[in-house]
Amino acid sequence: MSTTPIEWIAADWGTTNLRCWAMSATDAVLDRAQSDQGMSAITSGNGDFETALLELIKPWLQSGKRIPVSACGMVGAKQGWIEAPYALAPCAPTTERVTAPTQSQDIEVFIHAGVKQLAPSDVMRGEETQIAGLLAKSPHFSGLVCLPGTHTKWAAVSNGHLQFFNTYLTGELFTLLAEQSVLRLTLAKDGWNEPAFLEAVKAAIESPESLLSTCFSLRAEALLNHLDGIEARSRLSGYLIGQELSNVLKEVKSTEPITLIGSESLVEIYRVALNSLGISSETIPNETAILAGLATGRD
Amino acid sequence: MSTTPIEWIAADWGTTNLRCWAMSATDAVLDRAQSDQGMSAITSGNGDFETALLELIKPWLQSGKRIPVSACGMVGAKQGWIEAPYALAPCAPTTERVTAPTQSQDIEVFIHAGVKQLAPSDVMRGEETQIAGLLAKSPHFSGLVCLPGTHTKWAAVSNGHLQFFNTYLTGELFTLLAEQSVLRLTLAKDGWNEPAFLEAVKAAIESPESLLSTCFSLRAEALLNHLDGIEARSRLSGYLIGQELSNVLKEVKSTEPITLIGSESLVEIYRVALNSLGISSETIPNETAILAGLATGRD
Repeated sequence: MSTTPIEWIAADWGTTNLRCWAMSATDAVLDRAQSDQGMSAITSGNGDFETALLELIKPWLQSGKRIPVSACGMVGAKQGWIEAPYALAPCAPTTERVTAPTQSQDIEVFIHAGVKQLAPSDVMRGEETQIAGLLAKSPHFSGLVCLPGTHTKWAAVSNGHLQFFNTYLTGELFTLLAEQSVLRLTLAKDGWNEPAFLEAVKAAIESPESLLSTCFSLRAEALLNHLDGIEARSRLSGYLIGQELSNVLKEVKSTEPITLIGSESLVEIYRVALNSLGISSETIPNETAILAGLATGRD
Repeated sequence: MSTTPIEWIAADWGTTNLRCWAMSATDAVLDRAQSDQGMSAITSGNGDFETALLELIKPWLQSGKRIPVSACGMVGAKQGWIEAPYALAPCAPTTERVTAPTQSQDIEVFIHAGVKQLAPSDVMRGEETQIAGLLAKSPHFSGLVCLPGTHTKWAAVSNGHLQFFNTYLTGELFTLLAEQSVLRLTLAKDGWNEPAFLEAVKAAIESPESLLSTCFSLRAEALLNHLDGIEARSRLSGYLIGQELSNVLKEVKSTEPITLIGSESLVEIYRVALNSLGISSETIPNETAILAGLATGRD
């Protein structure tokens, strides 16, 4: 760990994970830490938010110095540490934050506002900060941003504003089907078959109405034709992402590349899916976007 | 309970439930019994199939008389009591059965064959017996049969044959989303709003590619507009059944009524959905179909 003083701490606190970064005065990353104490682990257990945070960032604290923690994500939901407001889209990145109640004298915790949209109804918590980071790096950015995850977001950004967005249950549905439906008997726990994935993306785009039937066919093919578990897993992913893309492409006629922000592995899956459809994409690492976004909130 | 002698026992043994009927020599129902000892309860516990069956039908047995039990459903799957073969569609109802190994001298258990289809790959266990029952009652039946359930089947029947069928994950997906996804925070545990259901069916048929997005919108509407939990539950059901129907209707131009076979409540949901699309339907009670089907296997 660097000897440069820690000026502030960035926290990306989602449903599943808590990720923290020790930041310098010039917004350089001095250290990283991560735990599985996402919002759902805390609300379903007996833990509390402050304890989970302090446990992770303890090595970074110095008594007598109150370090600001800039946080975003589901930690600001109604079930989170403290409810942060929603900005109303269309909107420029907001610097609105709420201060979370703390016992410790070593930290001061700010949670960023989420964004809501009224027609159609939609909400985000965390992704607005990644988009704020994108706009901090590229103020004149214009285009479509895809943020893959448990609840994948597609956002239209232009003129310095988040104009419109749309959330898909794709990631959560994949996990439920892979782990808890009858398909669990058929799918491998991991592994990847890209040609099988891309074929399934294509099939889903050609026939989005057949999703519930093609999903079951994976089970039948396993019973009758010994379908390989990795191929089955890749095809399920392709059917779901293809279904999502068939809706996105319906409304998007842009020839501009799609901007992907998210974890490396998930972004790569979307990149090859889009590429197979003749759509180029550019990638911004999750960390770059989130840190730039959390830094803007500190101005 | 009647004093007419019990000649045989019918058993519909699915993933979730075991339903038995005490039958007379003229195939009249003398008594009914039901338990939650479906295949998954037995394979995930320490139970065995014979014990679960004997426990339910004990009052019907007489020592010194070996009563035949005619069974169908997932009890004949690889994970079931004994694996029964699959007939290959297109096919007429098969009377192929396997004898399950038993310790008791009071019963002799026969499990009916399922049906498989190679292109596209599909399988059924239990529904083929309902279709056999339909054909036993109406040998010249021709039309499309819908058998709603955890895995809803649509089957084309004509010339005394099951010609083609297609399975949808609809029921299982509804349960997973309602109980385990982020939507669990929004959906009521029960209750029904028919107008909301029908509106969702219509929306899904108009835009089947938007399923993963409209599902999430229920959560957003609950957060932003206090969407009622019963309305949310009914709309989720409508989105999923509408998605299924949009695929069925793509391939079916029949003006013949659809024949529905299944539990009363589920069949009613499909009936109103089809009716709202201008498609009439006729209903055959589950029990009528399954008993007529299990009786044919005894010839």
